[in-house]
Formats: sequence, C-alpha cells, structure tokens
Amino acid sequence: MTEPQRQLRGRKPADRRVRVERPHAGFFRYAGPGQFVAREAASVPRTPVGRFLARGRGVLFGRPLSNLEEGEERLPKKKALAIFSSDAISSSAYATEEILRVLVLAGTGALLLSLPIAAAIALLLAVVSTSYRQIGYAYPSGGGAYAVARANLPMIAALVAASSLLVDYVMTVAVSTSSAVEQVISAVPSLHGLQVEIGVAAIVLITIGNLRGLRESGNIFAIPTYLFLGGSLLMIGIGLWRILVGGEGALPPSPLPGAPDPLHSLGYLLILRAFASGSVALSGVEAIANGVPAFQKPEPKNAAATLTAMAVLLGILFLGITFIANSFGIVPIDEPTTRTVISQVAAKIYGESSIGFYLYQTFTALILFLAANTSYNAFPRLGAILARDGYMPRQMSYRGDRLAFTLGIVILSVVASSLLVIFGGNTTALIPMYSVGVFVSFAISQSGMVRHWLAERAGGWRWRFAVNGLGAVLTGIVAVVVLVAKAPESLLVAVIIPVLVGVMIFIHRQYARSRVELAVRDEGVFPAGRRHERVVVPVPGINRAVVHAVNVGRAISDDIEAVFIAEDAAEATEMRARWGRQFPDVPLVVVESPYRALVGPLLAYLDVLDARMPAGRDLPVTFVVVPEYVARSWWERLLYNQSSKRLRTALLGRPHTVVVNVPYRRDEAEPGAVAPHA
Amino acid sequence: MTEPQRQLRGRKPADRRVRVERPHAGFFRYAGPGQFVAREAASVPRTPVGRFLARGRGVLFGRPLSNLEEGEERLPKKKALAIFSSDAISSSAYATEEILRVLVLAGTGALLLSLPIAAAIALLLAVVSTSYRQIGYAYPSGGGAYAVARANLPMIAALVAASSLLVDYVMTVAVSTSSAVEQVISAVPSLHGLQVEIGVAAIVLITIGNLRGLRESGNIFAIPTYLFLGGSLLMIGIGLWRILVGGEGALPPSPLPGAPDPLHSLGYLLILRAFASGSVALSGVEAIANGVPAFQKPEPKNAAATLTAMAVLLGILFLGITFIANSFGIVPIDEPTTRTVISQVAAKIYGESSIGFYLYQTFTALILFLAANTSYNAFPRLGAILARDGYMPRQMSYRGDRLAFTLGIVILSVVASSLLVIFGGNTTALIPMYSVGVFVSFAISQSGMVRHWLAERAGGWRWRFAVNGLGAVLTGIVAVVVLVAKAPESLLVAVIIPVLVGVMIFIHRQYARSRVELAVRDEGVFPAGRRHERVVVPVPGINRAVVHAVNVGRAISDDIEAVFIAEDAAEATEMRARWGRQFPDVPLVVVESPYRALVGPLLAYLDVLDARMPAGRDLPVTFVVVPEYVARSWWERLLYNQSSKRLRTALLGRPHTVVVNVPYRRDEAEPGAVAPHA
Repeated sequence: MTEPQRQLRGRKPADRRVRVERPHAGFFRYAGPGQFVAREAASVPRTPVGRFLARGRGVLFGRPLSNLEEGEERLPKKKALAIFSSDAISSSAYATEEILRVLVLAGTGALLLSLPIAAAIALLLAVVSTSYRQIGYAYPSGGGAYAVARANLPMIAALVAASSLLVDYVMTVAVSTSSAVEQVISAVPSLHGLQVEIGVAAIVLITIGNLRGLRESGNIFAIPTYLFLGGSLLMIGIGLWRILVGGEGALPPSPLPGAPDPLHSLGYLLILRAFASGSVALSGVEAIANGVPAFQKPEPKNAAATLTAMAVLLGILFLGITFIANSFGIVPIDEPTTRTVISQVAAKIYGESSIGFYLYQTFTALILFLAANTSYNAFPRLGAILARDGYMPRQMSYRGDRLAFTLGIVILSVVASSLLVIFGGNTTALIPMYSVGVFVSFAISQSGMVRHWLAERAGGWRWRFAVNGLGAVLTGIVAVVVLVAKAPESLLVAVIIPVLVGVMIFIHRQYARSRVELAVRDEGVFPAGRRHERVVVPVPGINRAVVHAVNVGRAISDDIEAVFIAEDAAEATEMRARWGRQFPDVPLVVVESPYRALVGPLLAYLDVLDARMPAGRDLPVTFVVVPEYVARSWWERLLYNQSSKRLRTALLGRPHTVVVNVPYRRDEAEPGAVAPHA
Repeated sequence: MTEPQRQLRGRKPADRRVRVERPHAGFFRYAGPGQFVAREAASVPRTPVGRFLARGRGVLFGRPLSNLEEGEERLPKKKALAIFSSDAISSSAYATEEILRVLVLAGTGALLLSLPIAAAIALLLAVVSTSYRQIGYAYPSGGGAYAVARANLPMIAALVAASSLLVDYVMTVAVSTSSAVEQVISAVPSLHGLQVEIGVAAIVLITIGNLRGLRESGNIFAIPTYLFLGGSLLMIGIGLWRILVGGEGALPPSPLPGAPDPLHSLGYLLILRAFASGSVALSGVEAIANGVPAFQKPEPKNAAATLTAMAVLLGILFLGITFIANSFGIVPIDEPTTRTVISQVAAKIYGESSIGFYLYQTFTALILFLAANTSYNAFPRLGAILARDGYMPRQMSYRGDRLAFTLGIVILSVVASSLLVIFGGNTTALIPMYSVGVFVSFAISQSGMVRHWLAERAGGWRWRFAVNGLGAVLTGIVAVVVLVAKAPESLLVAVIIPVLVGVMIFIHRQYARSRVELAVRDEGVFPAGRRHERVVVPVPGINRAVVHAVNVGRAISDDIEAVFIAEDAAEATEMRARWGRQFPDVPLVVVESPYRALVGPLLAYLDVLDARMPAGRDLPVTFVVVPEYVARSWWERLLYNQSSKRLRTALLGRPHTVVVNVPYRRDEAEPGAVAPHA
C-alpha cells in the first residue's frame, strides 16, 4: 500500500525512508510515550496556496518564533527613559499648541494666559508623577491602572480603568500619528492635503513592524527620544538666551487700559478648556510605572529615578516651548497650510529653512511616531490580560507566529486609522477625545493606591496615602473638567467607556455561563455512554461520495437509513427503484419537497423519527452523515456543497445530533465497492 | 420521556397529542411506506431569529409557493402584444435621440440625415422580424437564440449566443431604467442630479416584485404599453397634421450653396455611428419568438401575427417621432437639465407643461420600466437553462420560495445597478454596450435557422432559407458595424462575451469532471466496506463537551485516542494525570506546540499515525471527533469554536478522514456520566 508514501510526497527520498522508520521524526521531537513536541515543520501548510501565503507572510512578518525564543531583557535607566518616555515627552510637541488654539479664540490679548495655565499643568504633572513613583514601589510586577484597580477596588472600577486605557491607547496612536504628520507638513508644505494618506501609511508600517514582533528594547528606539530631547533643550536654551539676554521677542501686547480684564472677558469656561486641552501633556506618564519589571535591579528604585527624570524633562520642555512661543507671539497657522507652533518655534530659533530646522522637525516627527508605537505594545497586552481574565474574546490572547498578539494589533490599527480618516488627520479635532481616558485611568489607579495603603498600613503609609489621595482627587477633578470643558466630543468617550465596560461584563457572563454548563467533576471515571446510535444519510442521488458516506454510516451503526429529498414524484420513483437494487440493506425514505426546501424537510423528518420513539426511553444519538465532494479550490467551493454547508449549520443546533462530514476525494476509491460506469 | 414533546414545543396542545400518535402529521403527508410529501410547515425555521426573518421575507416577498401552484396561462394576441413588446416598442423612446446625438456633432446641417438613417433601420427591422416569424414557426416551444444555436450550430456558437443574450438583458435593464429616469427628469427638472438614486430605487422595486414571483401575465402589464402606444400614435398624428396640413415646423435649413456635401463632410464613420446608435430600436424584437408557448392556439400563427403588428407599430413610432423631431428642429438638450427628444416632441405637440405632456411622459417612463422588467424574466430563465445544461453554477437553477430564480434576479439587479452608478445613469453612455449583444445573438440565431432549413429541406424551404440567410447576413454586418463604429465602449462587450463563454466552458468541464469522478455503476449491490475505523478526538481540556465527544467516539470504534495540544510542558503533565484518572480506557497523546499552532500539529500527528501503518495494509478511515459548544447567537459564534471551524476546514481536505462535529447543548446531559463539579 502506497498511502503513507503518498502522504509524504514532496519530501526528499532520503528523508522519506527515515520517516517511515521513525514516522514522527519530521514533524515532532519524541518526548516520552504518547508525548511529542511539535517542530516548525508541523505547522507548514499542506496546500500550494497555503504554502505560498505562508511564504508571503514570512517575507512580510518574519519566520515563526517558538515560545522558547521569547527574550527577557533588562533595561538600564538611560535606555528605559528613552523607551518608556517617548509617549509622555512627545506630547510637548502639541500640548502648547492646543492651549493656544483655545486662547486665540478670545483674541491675542488672552494668549499670555498660556503661561499660568502651563504652570498649573506642570504642577499637576509633579503630583501625578510622584503618585506614580509609589505605584512602581507597591506593584513592582507592573500592570498599570487595571492591575491596581483589580487588586484594590471593585471589579467595575477595574473594567472602567481598562476601558479608559484601551481608549487612551487608541487615541495615542491617532493623535501622535496626526501630530507627526503635521510636523512633516510644517516642514514640507507641498505635502499639504495628504495628511490622512501619510498618517494611514505610517500606521500600516507600524502595524507590520509590530506583527513582526518588534520589540521596543532595540537601541533604535532610544535614538529619536534623545535626539528630540537634545534638540528641544538646545532650542529652549538658545531661545531663553535670545529673549532674556538679547532682548529679542516681546511679551504679547498688554491689554489696553480700560479694556475688560482678560480673565473676565474670556470666561472661566474657556480657561478651563485651555487647561483641559493642555493637560494632554500628561498622557503617557504612567508608562514607566507599568514597566517596572523591565528595569535592572533594584527595579522600583531605578524606575522611580527614571520617572522623576522624565517628569522634570517633560516639564522643562513644555514650559520652555510655551514661554518662547509666547515671547515671539507665535500662534498656530492653518492657512495656506498647517504650521505647528513647535515648528514655528524651531524656525524662529534655528532659522527658517535652515538645516537645524529640518533636522529638528525630523526628530519631532520620529518621536511622535515612536509614541504611537508604544501603544502597539500596551493595547494588545492589556487586551490579552483581559481575555485571560475572561473579559475579552479568547482570540485576543492568542499569539501569532511572531509571538505578537495579532488580533489586538489589528484592532488597534483599524480603529486608529478610522479615526484619522474620520477626523481628517486633524490633531486638534482628536484631542478632546484623548484626555478623558487618560485622566479617568489616572484617577482610578490613584484611588486604588489609596485603598492599598489603607489596607496595608505599613510604616510611613500616611505620607504615601496622602500623596496618592491628592493625586486621586486632582486627577479626578481634571477628568471631570476635561469631560465638561471639551464637550461634545469628549462626551463620545463618556459613552464609549461604559459601552466597553458593558461589553466586557457581557462577555464575562457568557464565558462564566459556558464554564458552568460545561463543568464536570474532577475525579472519577467517565464510562462509555449507553445510548443507542442511529444513522441518517441524506443522499442527493447515487454516486461515489454517497457510497462512501453510506459505508461510513454502516460502520457507525446498523440502524441506518438514507433520506432522499425529491423535487417531484417521478424523480422519487426512479430513485427508489435504483436504491433498492444497489443498497438492499439500507432502507430509503423519500421526502417529496414541493416547496423545494432541503434543510427544513430533513430536520422535520428527524423530528418525526424522535417523536416515534416510545415515551420513557432515552432518545438515540442521531448521526447525520453528509456526503461532500471536496472542493480543491475557491471556485469549486462555489460550484459544490453549498447545500451541505447549510445543512450542517442547521443540524448543529439540534439536540442529540452529531454531524459527520464525509469528504470524498477522487484519489480515494472504496476498495472493491465502486467501479466507474463504463 | 419528554423529549418528543419538547421537540414539538410551541404548538397547540390538541395538536401535540395527534402528533405523538401520528408523528409525521404536522410536517408531512403520508404517501406510502417510507414516502412523505413535505408540507409548508416542514420548512418553517426553528429559531426565533429564523422565524422573524422568515416573517419579514413573507411581508416583502409573499408566502412560499408550492411547485403545484405554478400557473400556466395562455395569452390572447392583444395581451401578448402588450406584454412581449414593451422592450421593443419602448426603444422608440430613445432610438431617435441616439441618432441625433451623433449627427449633431457634425452641425445642424447634418441632422436631416436622421431620416434616411431611420428608414434604413426600419428596413432592417422588417427583415429581422420576418426572420423571427420563421423561428416562431420552427421552434414553437420557444427558447430563443441559445436554443436555436444549440440545436443547429456547434456548442461554442450557442454559448456565444447565450453570453450575448445575458449581456443584452443586463443592458436592457440599465438602458431602459436610465432612459425612464431621463423621461421623468425631462418632465420634473427639479429632480435633475438624482438620476442614479431614482434609477437604483426603481431597480430595487422591480427586484422585490420579481422575487415575489411577479408574473408578466397580469393585466397591469398590458396597460402602460397601450397607453404609450395610444399617446404616441395620437402625438404623431397631430404632428403630421400640423406639419403637412398646417404648414407648421420647417425642414432643417438646406446646406448653403457651395457648402460641402454633408455626407462628405460628416465622413462615413459618423453616419455608421448614427446608424449603429439608432439600431438599438431593434432590441427586444426577439421576445415574441421566444415566448411562442405562451400564446393561445394555434400558437405559432398567433405569435407571427403579433410579431408583425409589433414590428409595424414600432416602425411607425420610430419613423414618426424622427420625422417630427426633424421638422421642429429638435435636438437633445443637456443644460441646464436633461430634456429628451421625445419629451420635447411631446411638449411641442401636447403643449409645454400641459396635462397631455405630463400624461405622455408618465406613460413613456412606465413602458420603459416595464421593458426593464422583461429582462427579469428572461435573464434568470436563461441562467437556469444554462445551469441545467451545466454551464452555470447549479444555484442558478434553484427556485426560491416564490418559484423565482432568486440568484439570477439578484445578479441581474446588482450588475445593472452597478452600470447605472458607473455611467451616472446616462443613457447615451450606456448605448454603445447595448447593441453588440443584441445583434450578435440575432446573427447567431438566424445562422442557426439557415442550418435548420438546410438540414430539414421541408416544402418551401428555399424561400425560408433565403429570408433567414438575408437576416443572418444583415444582422452579422450590423453587429460588426456596431462593434467598430461605437468603439471603444463596445469593445468592452467584445471582451466580456468571450470571457463569459470561457467561464461557462470552465464550469462545464468542472461539472463533467466531478460527474466522471463520482460516477458509479448503475447495477449491482454496494456492500459494506471492510475498512478498519480509527477515532481521534482532539481535546482542549476536560469538560462536558469533551465527555460527550469521547462517548460518541467510543460508540464509533474501540480504536480511539484523544490528542491534547499543549502550550507548555506543565500544562501537559497536569492534563495527562487527570485524563488517566477520568478516561482510563482512552489513551491520551500530548503534543506540545511551542509555535502555538493547533491545526498544523494535529494534521501532522494524523500523518504520523498513517505512516506508522505497516506497508501493504489498507489505511483505516480516521474519524476526527471534534467537540463543539453550540453557539446560540452570533456573539456566541464569535466567542466560541473559532478553532474547531479552522480545524474542520483543514481536515476536509485529508484523504480517508471523516470529520464528526459533536455539538454540546446545555439541555443534553450524558445520562449518568456527567455531574457538575459542586
């Protein structure tokens, strides 16, 4: 018999001999009796199309990685700063601009208010980063707002935190990408009008990189952060020198005597809006506290030092850029093409169209793309944690060939790209939806820490309790401010977060219910069932596939009958005669179907069979054996088996029913039983 | 035992008792031993959602019809004229316009040429309709170009005819609908700009009507034709009176002396193009000859008389409208809004904005929509004939609940709507693609008749041979003229027709091959196979679904083993220990899958099992028993069983493998075997 060889067709002859002696060798490593470890070869697709696709995937995403290849690398502080801070630090590229965009609505006289507003935000940053230092110490295993809330607060709070974070990560991608593209356009105005295209292309590239299993730990990720930091600090230094020493620039015009007080004329709402817009500067501050396990020992201490350095740098950048923009009277320009505030500051300091300006714009765009990339680690990882906890579909926790959480990455890209398209790649339009998620998750994690200290009451807990309490109160207030001041777009998020929470609870109940329904006792033997088996073979006529299916049916049980759904009586009579001749031992039931339905009458007939059983007896398990002609390509799939697919779907919902798909392949003749009609 | 009752839940208690005694009564009529006829109730969906959808379908499309309800109605000549001629006669609403649109490119002096061109087309109409009278006599069972070609010419010609007809029918829908909408807009200019929307809405309505199983035989279909005919004849009569007797209107300005001869200046190509555009007037002429069986006896004679009447009426309308348009110097107007030639003629004769004008425009639009509707009978019917002959996917021959060929109707609507959208609902843009199919099918059917007379040589055959020969030559020439003169759009059709033919041949080969592969001898008994059965149960853990699946597997064969694909060694060890305790009689094979793949390692393991078999022995049939948790809704389908779906797809391609899907439903405990873990 040549079948085993046929199975192994396409491999080298030398290999083949080895295989037949130790048949598992090609696919598995032998690990004991009945115990194998699959090699990469076991997952290689069997069809030419499948192999072709796999090869394409390999080129795009790299070869599959084994679980054992997952590396654990510890980061020194300097590298960790670069890698974990890109999200937070990059927000200095647009935070000033967002404040000015609100204030400019009230006239140039109001712009001066940007300085106190930025100072208030910097203060908030100081409080929040101090609070997060403590989270790093208390939860050195990382985990972020969801983990802290899960450990200390009711589950609903943890789910709100998780939803806020998911929204936050999506918005990080959308906002950072659109801001990066605006930096590019500020430098190369001829690209104006291509925002959405460039942004989506960037997201596609980042997606491919992450599906390849891109790790943030590469040196390449540290470079843009330091270049941007260096360029910004230099720019601020030169700017301050020119303003304070050289007397360049001018403070914005003071209000005319007798003019209304700006605070008064602006209205407090506008000031709150400017504050809310600027508070995006804080997004990403939590990244270091979440990533403590990646630091070198002692992890919490190193992380805390890095967090402080990050907060100080971010504060300097944000305040410095705001001050310089103010001194030179810079406001955002939209016509004829976008010119971001930071690009105007760079042009002022490094010189319009100078090499320094172009370099700085490049660094700015790079760190913003990098910030978008950080969400590609955080979002799928949180999705997988939620999936393992049963709050997201299980598929979110499946890792692809390259150990990346494929589904989470794809969802993140699709949603973020859609936002870019819907909002035309406009950063300012996206901002109102950004901050809400950020501050809700801050407030919940700080509240969790408050509960944590109350429960633990370790030495010095009062001080820690006070710090996190202040953080919780402040960030909670800011969350409300952001929600109210930046309505109505921010309200969209206020709807999305509860909906997400609802979906998670729903999913969790589903899984919990199915777990209960499927649960069996842990101990004791499960003996074989004692139920009778009955076989029903729906036949479309008599052909090889049918002969094969009937034989499979006969192997399962002697209680077998074939059912033929006929369109009219003439067809029925002919079939009955031929069937009686060729399958004398298998009774045939003919159902005429004047409404041309196939599935309905068959299901009805199965019900009739069940109803015929005498009451008080267990119903037998009904094996419905469906002959199928195996489609060898997509067009054959259109030409054949449409009916058996529908039949299968309908039968799977029926109790006590088992669906047996019997594929017929041309290379598989029933030995002796079938001979083609000459 | 309450299972049968549970099955019958939801029916009236009185019924229920009857059912249990005669369990088939609700679903079937008993027609002898093992012979049932399904009632409508047998096809009623089982799920609430299914029933809801069925109810919605019922409202939209009507209740299901039995095969026995298909009526056969014979049409009197007057009604037949109205029903079969709407396509042909309605083309007089745009044929003149299409001639003028070409000639106007050469200046107003050239417009006079429309009269001789229209006369030439009328002559062609006379020849073609005489030829088709003979087809009606020779093929009284109807069938059209495809049937005639199949009987007399090589198959390839029949397929070319079929493809041309399919294209022709699609174009009839697109052109008639767009022209109808243009008539509406000519009367109600404020609808300008909504062409596509109105056209697609009309197609949707026609589609719903036809999915309801709309019959053309209703009186309602006769009315618009006669109203349009009456209105047109009246209009032409008044017009001729006013021109010839009242001296109104004027012949177009004669060319100035010394001006170039219009024929010369136009160039012959432009004249040919005008002729080709106008020849759309002939589309639909074949409908009566195809519909002979629907006439009262003697069918061919009545059909021939009706055909002649139709041709005469069409000729009068076409020539009359062309003459009046010429006399009043009417040319198509596009700005500021479309005004069709026929609407301008009607405005001239009946008075601008008169009630007569609006009525006439209504009739014109109605007969054009009716013409579109005729394709909804012809296209799906031809598709079903092709499917029965094996040249189209079988689904094309399935009739839906209302006896309509659902798939054909849907395809026709989708393609025609797409054309409307792509060409912006512009009749003139669609016309070049229309005539090619029409004349190719004419030429092929006439050629088929030539062969028919040559083969038959009955009395008087020479005369008939000559008529069809002339028809074949003329329509063949016109087909070439249309193809060349109206390029490049017409060339698109010249590509589509061969592609369609290629697809049909491909489908036919596929079906032929599968028939050969599946063929079994007609006589002799098929005994049970003598192959060994082996059962493999892939298990994701131990739960009720798994217990159920293992029990099903044990029922099939004693040669059973379970396969557990583990992510890591720890998981494997734990599972092995528990399995050994709870299923001591079922060996467990554990495959560690460090690449996290599920399907690949399982397939590889099955190959290993096969390869282990000693050479020379028949391979056993492998039953892969897949436990499934039954999804009760679409969201559950997302949450569960994604893996088993992929597994099933992969296994269906494997030789000697049978896939057994064992659904687990919560209401189906394995008696005695399972108790939830308390």
